Amino acid sequence: MSLAIEEDLKTYCLTTAQKAKQASRQLGSLLTAQKDAWLLASADALEAATDEILAQNARDLSAAPEYGLSPAALDRLRLTPDRIAAIAHSLREIAALRDPIGQTLDGSVRPNGLEIRKVSVPLGTVFFIYESRPNVTVDAAAICVKSGNAVILRGGKEARYSSAAMVAVLARTAEECGIPPNAVQLVETIDRDAVGYFLSLSDLIDVAIPRGGKGLIERVVAEARMPVIKHYDGNCHVYLHESADEAMAVDIVVNSKCQRMGVCNACESLLVDRKVAKQLLPKVCQALTEQGIELRGDPETCQLVPAAKAASEDDWWAEYLGPTISIKVVDGIEQAIEHINHYGSHHTDAIVASTLAAAQAFTAAIDSSAVIVNASTRFNDGGAFGLGAEIGISTDKFHARGPCGLSELTTYKYLVHGNGQIRN
Amino acid sequence: MSLAIEEDLKTYCLTTAQKAKQASRQLGSLLTAQKDAWLLASADALEAATDEILAQNARDLSAAPEYGLSPAALDRLRLTPDRIAAIAHSLREIAALRDPIGQTLDGSVRPNGLEIRKVSVPLGTVFFIYESRPNVTVDAAAICVKSGNAVILRGGKEARYSSAAMVAVLARTAEECGIPPNAVQLVETIDRDAVGYFLSLSDLIDVAIPRGGKGLIERVVAEARMPVIKHYDGNCHVYLHESADEAMAVDIVVNSKCQRMGVCNACESLLVDRKVAKQLLPKVCQALTEQGIELRGDPETCQLVPAAKAASEDDWWAEYLGPTISIKVVDGIEQAIEHINHYGSHHTDAIVASTLAAAQAFTAAIDSSAVIVNASTRFNDGGAFGLGAEIGISTDKFHARGPCGLSELTTYKYLVHGNGQIRN
Repeated sequence: MSLAIEEDLKTYCLTTAQKAKQASRQLGSLLTAQKDAWLLASADALEAATDEILAQNARDLSAAPEYGLSPAALDRLRLTPDRIAAIAHSLREIAALRDPIGQTLDGSVRPNGLEIRKVSVPLGTVFFIYESRPNVTVDAAAICVKSGNAVILRGGKEARYSSAAMVAVLARTAEECGIPPNAVQLVETIDRDAVGYFLSLSDLIDVAIPRGGKGLIERVVAEARMPVIKHYDGNCHVYLHESADEAMAVDIVVNSKCQRMGVCNACESLLVDRKVAKQLLPKVCQALTEQGIELRGDPETCQLVPAAKAASEDDWWAEYLGPTISIKVVDGIEQAIEHINHYGSHHTDAIVASTLAAAQAFTAAIDSSAVIVNASTRFNDGGAFGLGAEIGISTDKFHARGPCGLSELTTYKYLVHGNGQIRN
Repeated sequence: MSLAIEEDLKTYCLTTAQKAKQASRQLGSLLTAQKDAWLLASADALEAATDEILAQNARDLSAAPEYGLSPAALDRLRLTPDRIAAIAHSLREIAALRDPIGQTLDGSVRPNGLEIRKVSVPLGTVFFIYESRPNVTVDAAAICVKSGNAVILRGGKEARYSSAAMVAVLARTAEECGIPPNAVQLVETIDRDAVGYFLSLSDLIDVAIPRGGKGLIERVVAEARMPVIKHYDGNCHVYLHESADEAMAVDIVVNSKCQRMGVCNACESLLVDRKVAKQLLPKVCQALTEQGIELRGDPETCQLVPAAKAASEDDWWAEYLGPTISIKVVDGIEQAIEHINHYGSHHTDAIVASTLAAAQAFTAAIDSSAVIVNASTRFNDGGAFGLGAEIGISTDKFHARGPCGLSELTTYKYLVHGNGQIRN
């Protein structure tokens, strides 16, 4: 890159971030009614612009071969009238959610008469870096604006024309509804260096949210000078306690592993109590094999289940995100807990058990964003938890843990009212 | 440093962090009664060990000249029986606070019958780097353990013997009360490289909290691979609205500026509405001058107040932490808000006003951790807000903003109870 172009790119990023910061100052004091009016108007406008959006999506689809997209990725990129209607529906759902801004989180009157209130306010500006699914563009814009934040969207180049068409629609309705025009900005350049420049602007951008492969997230963590909400994948476990109901155990393991394999809350590792392994493991493994899952077990598993291959140390750490599962026979709940806290990624871990003591011990000791008793690991997301829309699932402990919905994009300030109090 | 010594230091830091992590796993499930018993026993034991502690404090005091401590720093370092009693009293106060762990923060039953609970849990391990006041050692240990966290304390070398004596007392009572012995560890080496090693151990340490000068904090931010709760100083404002009560204005400005000057919530800059500047500013400035405060004003201020020197652009950004204040006449509340959000450090800003509209506009628009109406800026701390003990005042928006008490050292996890639910 020549120096002149590099300077242009830096200026572009700086200007974009300054505009976002300016918009964020207005966004924080918008009425809920204004934000919701924009969401509803945008839903209608997106549906009305279906032809225009599909035309731009066709440009992305025709460019897809040069990016070497897999058939699955190509399918995620493709928009249809039904998919545009689903995007509009999601905007209407976000409009129906409670405004997370201006909530009184805590409050008291102090002995000296000072009235203290802790109230929720927006974080400010969000830099969102994400994969190529065009629906994410609209979802992220809606979640950020509803929570009073300005957003800079850096989507995958594979969806650039589709995203630009949809953001243009959002911008038109913003003008009509009194939303600052720079509340939602799509990064126009596909230059990868732009990401680095944005990540250096800690005075203007309050949080970076990368969503995508591990490589992307690691790059963002290394370069960002502002806080990052990270979404690493999950090495999630299902543990079958000796008191587990057999049918429930089979259902939960199969659902956790197979219902959708490429996602962070899918099960990657199965632990079974020795006392029930002989009885239970063959049934569970048969059900998994019927779903085309490859089994990698410890020596005991391999003895009980001839179809299982020997697992290596790497398998206990692995996030397969595909049709493979690791399986280990454990001595009891203590060993299961130790294994999960050691090898797991603190994302989502489940126990199947019928005794209260086992459920209590497991939920107390497992250090994960969601600890699940007698249900599928696949439930760890904002929709299933009733948070409404989510911008991702945080694998951090700091600020936000687990599903990140509207509230997770807020911070707070203290409002203090007195009548002349001074400090002694 | 020779390679062998460097390896020793690395091993020491790694081992210390591993021990902390291990202790943290036990700490999270301690009963409130156990933690409080330790706090109360430690209070008694510290008082009983007064002679032993004073003897070690004398060693620090006699070494102080070689560190070139100022008289004020020397005074902060000095322990007396009364000061040890105050430290013990602070432990008893922390024992009386509500346990922040195990609180249900939110909960619902989903349409499919899943019971979702969001419960508070400890962050894990805290690496606390702080100045040389020995009372901070005990306070930080108490706050961390009460919130279920293990802590690695890296205090200033100036207080090393005093801190070690007090941590030894805490360790003895820990053993008696069933608290893991490594819940509180004091870094034994004064080697500055140790800080860097600890800051690299993001798998073992969940948060770093530096408290001290700007240089220390900047170093920690640059080197830390884990989240940091930052405590930068504050450039705090008092704005006198045209509707301000005169006597209240004088009291609040003088208290905000002069009650204690070297702290982050002291006033550094004064804004006055033009409509009342001629009447009000001379009175306020006379009161400040009587306290020995140097005035640096914009041209209008200098016209109205002959004692004021001309302020430069740097003065609007300055955190004097001493007997100087910058003063500017503004056109009204809009200009005041713009000035504060531009030059301020988003820490603590106050308005003196008697009209509701002014108070509302100010509290809505000012983007600071505490926005104060008709009271001194000096009230922005955990004690004044009723949070109980605090480990510092965060200047971040992320995770914790403003005073950091027990709750700010927690995170949460979701507990999900089902009866066999799987995902469609």
